[in-house]
Amino acid sequence: MKPETLATLRRVSTATLTTQMFKRGFRNVFMQGVRALGSYGDNMVGPATTVRNIPAREDIDVMASLGNPEHPQRKAVETIKPGHVLVMDCRGDARAASGGDILMTRLMRREAAGVVTDGGIRDAGPIAKMPLPVFCAGPSAPLNIIQHHAVEIDAPIACGGVAVYPGDILVGDADGVVVLPAHLADDVAADAAAQEELEAFLLARIDAGAPLPGTYPPNQATLAAFEEWKARQG
Amino acid sequence: MKPETLATLRRVSTATLTTQMFKRGFRNVFMQGVRALGSYGDNMVGPATTVRNIPAREDIDVMASLGNPEHPQRKAVETIKPGHVLVMDCRGDARAASGGDILMTRLMRREAAGVVTDGGIRDAGPIAKMPLPVFCAGPSAPLNIIQHHAVEIDAPIACGGVAVYPGDILVGDADGVVVLPAHLADDVAADAAAQEELEAFLLARIDAGAPLPGTYPPNQATLAAFEEWKARQG
Amino acid sequence: MKPETLATLRRVSTATLTTQMFKRGFRNVFMQGVRALGSYGDNMVGPATTVRNIPAREDIDVMASLGNPEHPQRKAVETIKPGHVLVMDCRGDARAASGGDILMTRLMRREAAGVVTDGGIRDAGPIAKMPLPVFCAGPSAPLNIIQHHAVEIDAPIACGGVAVYPGDILVGDADGVVVLPAHLADDVAADAAAQEELEAFLLARIDAGAPLPGTYPPNQATLAAFEEWKARQG
Amino acid sequence: MKPETLATLRRVSTATLTTQMFKRGFRNVFMQGVRALGSYGDNMVGPATTVRNIPAREDIDVMASLGNPEHPQRKAVETIKPGHVLVMDCRGDARAASGGDILMTRLMRREAAGVVTDGGIRDAGPIAKMPLPVFCAGPSAPLNIIQHHAVEIDAPIACGGVAVYPGDILVGDADGVVVLPAHLADDVAADAAAQEELEAFLLARIDAGAPLPGTYPPNQATLAAFEEWKARQG
Amino acid sequence: MKPETLATLRRVSTATLTTQMFKRGFRNVFMQGVRALGSYGDNMVGPATTVRNIPAREDIDVMASLGNPEHPQRKAVETIKPGHVLVMDCRGDARAASGGDILMTRLMRREAAGVVTDGGIRDAGPIAKMPLPVFCAGPSAPLNIIQHHAVEIDAPIACGGVAVYPGDILVGDADGVVVLPAHLADDVAADAAAQEELEAFLLARIDAGAPLPGTYPPNQATLAAFEEWKARQG
Amino acid sequence: MKPETLATLRRVSTATLTTQMFKRGFRNVFMQGVRALGSYGDNMVGPATTVRNIPAREDIDVMASLGNPEHPQRKAVETIKPGHVLVMDCRGDARAASGGDILMTRLMRREAAGVVTDGGIRDAGPIAKMPLPVFCAGPSAPLNIIQHHAVEIDAPIACGGVAVYPGDILVGDADGVVVLPAHLADDVAADAAAQEELEAFLLARIDAGAPLPGTYPPNQATLAAFEEWKARQG
Repeated sequence: MKPETLATLRRVSTATLTTQMFKRGFRNVFMQGVRALGSYGDNMVGPATTVRNIPAREDIDVMASLGNPEHPQRKAVETIKPGHVLVMDCRGDARAASGGDILMTRLMRREAAGVVTDGGIRDAGPIAKMPLPVFCAGPSAPLNIIQHHAVEIDAPIACGGVAVYPGDILVGDADGVVVLPAHLADDVAADAAAQEELEAFLLARIDAGAPLPGTYPPNQATLAAFEEWKARQG
Repeated sequence: MKPETLATLRRVSTATLTTQMFKRGFRNVFMQGVRALGSYGDNMVGPATTVRNIPAREDIDVMASLGNPEHPQRKAVETIKPGHVLVMDCRGDARAASGGDILMTRLMRREAAGVVTDGGIRDAGPIAKMPLPVFCAGPSAPLNIIQHHAVEIDAPIACGGVAVYPGDILVGDADGVVVLPAHLADDVAADAAAQEELEAFLLARIDAGAPLPGTYPPNQATLAAFEEWKARQG
Repeated sequence: MKPETLATLRRVSTATLTTQMFKRGFRNVFMQGVRALGSYGDNMVGPATTVRNIPAREDIDVMASLGNPEHPQRKAVETIKPGHVLVMDCRGDARAASGGDILMTRLMRREAAGVVTDGGIRDAGPIAKMPLPVFCAGPSAPLNIIQHHAVEIDAPIACGGVAVYPGDILVGDADGVVVLPAHLADDVAADAAAQEELEAFLLARIDAGAPLPGTYPPNQATLAAFEEWKARQG
Repeated sequence: MKPETLATLRRVSTATLTTQMFKRGFRNVFMQGVRALGSYGDNMVGPATTVRNIPAREDIDVMASLGNPEHPQRKAVETIKPGHVLVMDCRGDARAASGGDILMTRLMRREAAGVVTDGGIRDAGPIAKMPLPVFCAGPSAPLNIIQHHAVEIDAPIACGGVAVYPGDILVGDADGVVVLPAHLADDVAADAAAQEELEAFLLARIDAGAPLPGTYPPNQATLAAFEEWKARQG
Repeated sequence: MKPETLATLRRVSTATLTTQMFKRGFRNVFMQGVRALGSYGDNMVGPATTVRNIPAREDIDVMASLGNPEHPQRKAVETIKPGHVLVMDCRGDARAASGGDILMTRLMRREAAGVVTDGGIRDAGPIAKMPLPVFCAGPSAPLNIIQHHAVEIDAPIACGGVAVYPGDILVGDADGVVVLPAHLADDVAADAAAQEELEAFLLARIDAGAPLPGTYPPNQATLAAFEEWKARQG
Repeated sequence: MKPETLATLRRVSTATLTTQMFKRGFRNVFMQGVRALGSYGDNMVGPATTVRNIPAREDIDVMASLGNPEHPQRKAVETIKPGHVLVMDCRGDARAASGGDILMTRLMRREAAGVVTDGGIRDAGPIAKMPLPVFCAGPSAPLNIIQHHAVEIDAPIACGGVAVYPGDILVGDADGVVVLPAHLADDVAADAAAQEELEAFLLARIDAGAPLPGTYPPNQATLAAFEEWKARQG
C-alpha cells in the first residue's frame, strides 16, 4: 500500500469504495450486519489480521482455556502489528461477545487501527467512548467462549458475509466496513479520491439548484466545468 | 387533504395514528424495519410518490444505466412535487443503498417532505445531519444497482410490509412510519388530534399520581373533568 | 436479596454477571434482541414482575378490553411493587408495542425500577428521555392489542430467549439485560464485585502497557500485586 | 361441538376453514411453520389440551425432572382426554424436540386425536409412520429439556403464531393446522361443508372447461345450476 | 425461442443452466426458497406471465374483490397463453396462499406450463398430485387476500429474489426454478445440452472408477476420448 | 473407535445420542437446518473429513479454479478415506450448491460413508436416489463458486451451528446429524445401545397400555422386570 493510500482511504467514503469495486467487477465487498459501535472521526483503515472462530464445545471452551498464551484470539491481540485491523469471524452470531474493554484497551496500546467482528462486543458502553474504532453486530454481554472457539490466526475468513484474506485493506465509516483486496488498494483509493473530488463539485452544483440531468451523472459540459474548476484550484 | 390536516399530522404521534387506524379496521399500517436515520423536529408528513424496484440483473443494471434521464429512480427525484415523500420499495433488502447524499440534496432542493425506503441509505453519516427526514432499513454503502433495478414511478408498492398507494399520506416520527390512505387522512388527523388532547390531560393526571383505573382509559368522571378543563382553556 | 446486593448490581456490568453465571453452569442468561431505549446512569436492577402475552385474537382484543381493570398488563402496572422490574413476554414480536408514554409514566410514579420487553415500545422518542430504564426490541407504534393479548401476571415467562421466573433479579446496562435466579443474586453480586475490582486493577495495568500474558488472566505475580494494592487501599 | 361437526371437520380442508374464519373477521388462525410429519387420511380434529414451555434453565431442567409425575408435559400426556389434540407452545424453537416415539405411542394408547407443536419432534422417522397425526416445525433429535421447560397445562398459549385457548378446535391437513374458537366450530363447520359442496360443483365445471368469470366465484346462473344439481342429488 | 430449445430445456438440469448463466456473467438466476410441490417428470419450461402482489389492505381486499373479472390474478389465469408459466410475486411471504385447486385446474385446462410463486399454495395435498408443475414457498391454507393484493399483470417482478421480466423463460426441476432472459434462451439451451452430453460421458467414467483429476473437469485426453465417443455414437 | 461401535452407531438413533451427550454435559451436538436428502436404511456413520468454505470472490472463484487438482473441495473428494464422511462448512448458506452428481458419484466410488453440508446440493433429484447418504440444507442449483470458496481440508469447522473437528464421528438418520467427539464415541455408543435396549422394552409396555408413571422413566419395579426380561433373552 502506497503511503498516500492510507491517507486517502481515511477520508473517502465506503460508499465510494463500493462503487469503485463494482466498476472492477466486485459486488460483495461490504459487510452485512456490521456497524460502528461509536462515532469516530476519520475512517478506520488498515490491513486485516484475522481470527477464525467456530462454535464452542463445552469440554474445550472453559475459563481456563483463556489463560493459554497460545489461545488464538488472545495471541492475535498480543501480536497484532501497529496499524492493523483485527477482524474476527464469528459466523454472524452475536449471542456472545468477541471481546470486551480489556482486550480493546490492549489493542489500543498495541496501536491497532481498529476491530471488526460479525459477533457481539461486551462492555459496549465504555468501548463506544474509546478512540479505537470498533465495528460489530451489536452489544452482547456473554463471554466469547459460550459461543465461540478461536481456531486460528491469519487464515482467510468470512466476516459479515464477505471474504477477508489476511492483509486485505479494511475501511470503516458510519455506513459500515468495506474489504479491499490488498493488490487493488492503491488503485481503488486513487480512483475513489478522483471520484469524490468530482462528486464534491457535483454536490455543490446540486446544492445550488442544478437538476440531476446533465449534473449527476455529469455530461460533457459539466465535466468541462469541473476540469476548469480544478484548473482554477491549481 | 385539508390545510389543517398537514399541521395536525406534523405533531400527532404515529402511535396515535395507528390507534385511529385500528379503530377503523386497519391493522397493518406501520412499516416494519424502517427507522429514522437522524433526529428530526416535527413529523415528516406528505403524500407518497412511489418508486418500485426489483432485483438487479447484471446485464441491465450497469453504471451507464444511471445516466438515462428516464431511469425511474432518478426521474422520480427530478420530478417529485414539493411536499411529497419519496417512497421506495426495495423488498426490505438493505444489502444495497436506495440513494446517497447527492440524491438527498436534490430532494431537499426540490422541497420534498422526506424519503422512505425499506432498503439501505449510503452516506448515512452526512445524511443523518441533513434537515430532510430520511427513514430506511439502515446504513448500507453499496450502490443501488448491485441489488435494485428501478422499474416504475407511482405504482402501488410494498414498503416495510405495508401497501403504499401513490398519494397515500405518510407520517414519520421517532417510532417509524405510518401509511394513511389519502381519503382517510383528514378524518384520522382530526380524531388523532382529539385523542392527543385527551391523552395530554390524562398523562398530566397520571404524572400527578392518578391510578390507571378511571384515568386511562378515562371513566365518565375523568371525561367530565377533561371537558371542564377544555372549556376553561377556551 | 441482601441490601448491599442491590447497590452492587447497580454498578457491576452485565458482562461480568454473565461470566459469573457461566462459572456456575448457566449459559443462557442474557436476553437476545433486547436493548436499552435511552441512556441511563446506573444499571437497572430489580426483581421481576412478569406479564405473559399470547397472539391477539380479533374478537377478544378490542379497544374496550383495555378498560377492564383486571386486564393483566394494566393490572400489573397498577400493582407493581416499588423497585420491581416489569418484564413482558411478547414472543420476540416487535410488530406492535408493549406500552407507551402513559403506562411508562404510571410505572415511574409507582417507583418501578424499569421495564423489559421483547416486543416494541411506542412513543419511543419521549420515553427514551424519561429516567425510567426501558429495554425493548425497538420502537414500534402499533398498539399492543394488534398483536398481543395479556394472559397472566407473575407466571414464569420467556423474554428475549431467556426464562424469567417471578422474583428473578434483572440487571440492565448498555449491553442489555441479564436474568439472575433470585437465590443466586447475593452470591453472584459479591463475586461480580470482586471480579470487577480485580479487572479494574488489570485494566489499569493493560492501559499502562502491560501485555496480556501474565496480566489477563492474571498470573500469581499479578495476583500478588493486586492483593498488595488492595491492602494499600485499606 | 355438535356430533356432526367432528365428522364435517374431518373432511373439509383447512383452506376452506380459513376462508370461513376470514368471513367472520379472523385473519390469524393458521399456524405458521407447522407441518404434518407424515401422510394421514382424514383431517386431524379435536379440542386442544395445551402445554406451555419456556426456555430451559440448566439447574432446573435436568434428566431427573422428567421422572416427576407432576412434570406438566408428562402429566398432559398421561391425562389427556380421548379425542383431544395435545398442543405444545415451544416458542417456534425447533432446536430441540417436543417429544419422541414413546410419548407418541402413549398418546395413541390414550386415544389422543393428534399432536401439534411449533417445536421439533425426535424419532421423526418412526413417528411419521404411526397413525397418530403429528404436526411440528420439523424433525429435531435433541431432548426437550435442552431448550424447553414445561410450565403449565391448559393455559392459553401461542403456537405457530396463533393464540390457542384450551378447548379450541384444531384441524390439521396437508396444508397445516387451523385453530377454531370452540364457540364457532359448529357454525364454521356447517358453512365450510356448504362451501365445499358448492366448490366441488364449481371445480367439476372448471375441470370440464368452464371459464373463471361466472363460475368462480359463481354468478346467479351458476348458483341456480348448483341448486338444481343439489336438488337432483336429492 | 427456437422449437428445439423447448425440448432441450425440458431435459437439461437447472444446475447446468445456472452454470451456463454464470459463464455469461449472471450470478442471481435461481429462485431462493421456492420448491416443487409435487414430483414431476420432465422439467417445467415456458415463458413467464407475471402477476404482481403488494400487501393486502383491509378495506380493498375483501371477498367481493375476487369476483371482479378484472382482478389481476384471476384475469391472468383466464388469459394466460398455452405453454406459459404463471409467475406470482408474493414478496416471499408464504403466510397466505397464491391460489388453490380451482385456479390450478383452470390453469391446466388453459394448458399453462406451470405455476411459480414465492408465496404459499393452499390445497397443497390435491395440487401435489396434479400433473401441472407447481413451485412455491410451501403449503399455506389462508386465502390470498389476507396478505396479498394483486396489482398488475405482465410487469417485471421479483420472485424468490430473482428479477422476472414477462417472457423470460422459466425452467423448473427438483432443485427449483431458474430464470433465463428470453434472448439468451436458445444459446443457453444449446450450450447446456452440450455440457450435459459431456458430463454424461464424464459421469460414466467417474462411475467406472476414474479419478477427478483429468476427468472432472476433463483434460485434453478426456476431451479427445469424448469426441471419439461422440463420433462413434454417430 | 472400536469395531463394534460402528455397528452400534448404525442402528441407534440420533435422538438417543443427543441424550447420551447431554448426560455428559454437551448441549450443542445436533446440526440445525441440515436434513437427509433421501431415505436411507442404516444410519450414516463415519469420521469427519472437513472442508472449509468462505464467501466467494469474483476474481478468484472462476470456472478455471475448479480444474486445479489442489482445489481443496476437489482434493478432499479425491483423497477421502473409505468410511469417512465429507463435512463441508458453507456457513449455513444454501444459495449455492456444495456439489452435484459427479462429485457424489466419485465419493461413492471412493467408499465415503456419506456427505454433510450446511449449504445446498444440486442435482438433488438424482442424488436423493443414490445409496450414498447426503445431508444438506436443501436442494440448490447454483454452482458452488457463486457463493463458496474452499479454503482448507481437515481444519476444525462449523457445520449447522455445531463444531466439527476432523475425526469426530458423525451419525445421521431421519432426524438429522449428530457430532460425537472421537474420544467419546465408544462410550457413548455403548451407553446408547443400553438405553435403546431399555427403551425398546419400555416402548413395548407403553404400546401394551402401561401408563407413563413408573414406566417412562422406569421405576425400580420396571427396571427389575427389564433385567428379568434381559436375562430370559439370554
